[in-house]
Amino acid sequence: MAAPSKKLKKADSTAHPELEPKDFDEDTQKALEEIDSCQNEIEALNEQASEEILRVEQRFNRQRKPHFERRANIICKVPHFWTTAFTNHPDLNSLLEEPEEDCFNFLTVIDVEEFEDIKSGYRLKFYFTENPYFENPVLTKEFQLGNSGAPTSSSIPIRWKEDMDLTHTNEPTCTRTGRKRQLDQRSFFTWYNDHSDPTSDSIAEIIKDDLWHNPLQYFLIPDVDVGNGIDDDEEGEDVNS
Amino acid sequence: MAAPSKKLKKADSTAHPELEPKDFDEDTQKALEEIDSCQNEIEALNEQASEEILRVEQRFNRQRKPHFERRANIICKVPHFWTTAFTNHPDLNSLLEEPEEDCFNFLTVIDVEEFEDIKSGYRLKFYFTENPYFENPVLTKEFQLGNSGAPTSSSIPIRWKEDMDLTHTNEPTCTRTGRKRQLDQRSFFTWYNDHSDPTSDSIAEIIKDDLWHNPLQYFLIPDVDVGNGIDDDEEGEDVNS
Ligand SMILES: [Ca+2]
Ligand SMILES: [Ca+2]
Ligand SMILES: [Mg+2]
Ligand SMILES: [Mg+2]
Repeated sequence: MAAPSKKLKKADSTAHPELEPKDFDEDTQKALEEIDSCQNEIEALNEQASEEILRVEQRFNRQRKPHFERRANIICKVPHFWTTAFTNHPDLNSLLEEPEEDCFNFLTVIDVEEFEDIKSGYRLKFYFTENPYFENPVLTKEFQLGNSGAPTSSSIPIRWKEDMDLTHTNEPTCTRTGRKRQLDQRSFFTWYNDHSDPTSDSIAEIIKDDLWHNPLQYFLIPDVDVGNGIDDDEEGEDVNS
Repeated sequence: MAAPSKKLKKADSTAHPELEPKDFDEDTQKALEEIDSCQNEIEALNEQASEEILRVEQRFNRQRKPHFERRANIICKVPHFWTTAFTNHPDLNSLLEEPEEDCFNFLTVIDVEEFEDIKSGYRLKFYFTENPYFENPVLTKEFQLGNSGAPTSSSIPIRWKEDMDLTHTNEPTCTRTGRKRQLDQRSFFTWYNDHSDPTSDSIAEIIKDDLWHNPLQYFLIPDVDVGNGIDDDEEGEDVNS
């Protein structure tokens, strides 16, 4: 559900005269002031609660960090770990066609850094070893979702090696219609460069909240249809969910 | 964003053979077991974090309670408080036509009770004084959203007085088309009796998370068009937001 609108549209003043304090009798005016004072106390408690919860989340983020670091060091030892996890993931596998799969075999570490206050944004980092595709040792896509200004995302530009730019080679190989076709044209690298809708980047959220949280389950258990160009019904549902 | 699918569909075994432990060399197998052990430690921390956050929320719910109770006692003194707050609320005003507005002038207290573990459900209670419409002193709509079984909602049956059943009198008075018409046909009481989609009852969520949280802002500041049958663009947007 969308958050209810908070905009305070100025209504037609003859149809809906604004209810100024002077419109109320003395008892009502006093009651409204007391309600307002209750609201202020409730609001102060809400803010205290938010701050305490933030501190709990920050503390547990710190406690989880060494485990994620240890995990990253082990994952490096497993051949094709991230390629396999991505291609087994029902919502991520369409991002990798053959050239991206090959490129992902050079991906060693995925790291998710939440900003210190958590709610203002996060950063996805993809570490690659020396590879035939680009020069960058790390690709970073960052989401600034904080209170100041409109939400944005940005990513470090990819320094492609000559003739190796994968955003130019990923043409769809079979004809599909409408929405489905648009989704399939998106690859990992077109997603990486896409900053059109930072507040609802579902790929980023899946990487942050699902894949990174427990990639082993996707490495071990295939849950995808074969890429044979024939789509089953379930992929269609994903689009609308 | 919807939570990524967790169902583990059995893939075609020739196309995606399941990767059993025996498929891996010894080093990889050892690495996977170490990753699994990291995951278990991360998971244990996740559970600890959830429990701590739940305890913080429960503690602040207890601290807010006396302020909400004091507020309820003051609101009773303000004539037409809830009728005004509902009719001024952009997402709730369509629930009240004339007969419901009259009925709502007997509504003294709205109470929201979250279940002790918060996530498993909540209860909306509407206290009415003696009125010409029904016998119940309190109408309760409850949402059971917990882990055991499918989510459901239920409400205490309304004991209407003779010929006063407002669910039978709320026929639309002007012709509108499509979606808008469907929405407008819904009144407070048809919402109250509707249990078709307990996990996305947006009216219930607006009452719980917005109206009840701070009804004074809606009592004081009108933010609605006049009920003259001519709809402005913004109402159309509400439908899609
Ligand atoms: Ca694709
Ligand atoms: Ca209506
Ligand atoms: Mg697929
Ligand atoms: Mg309206």
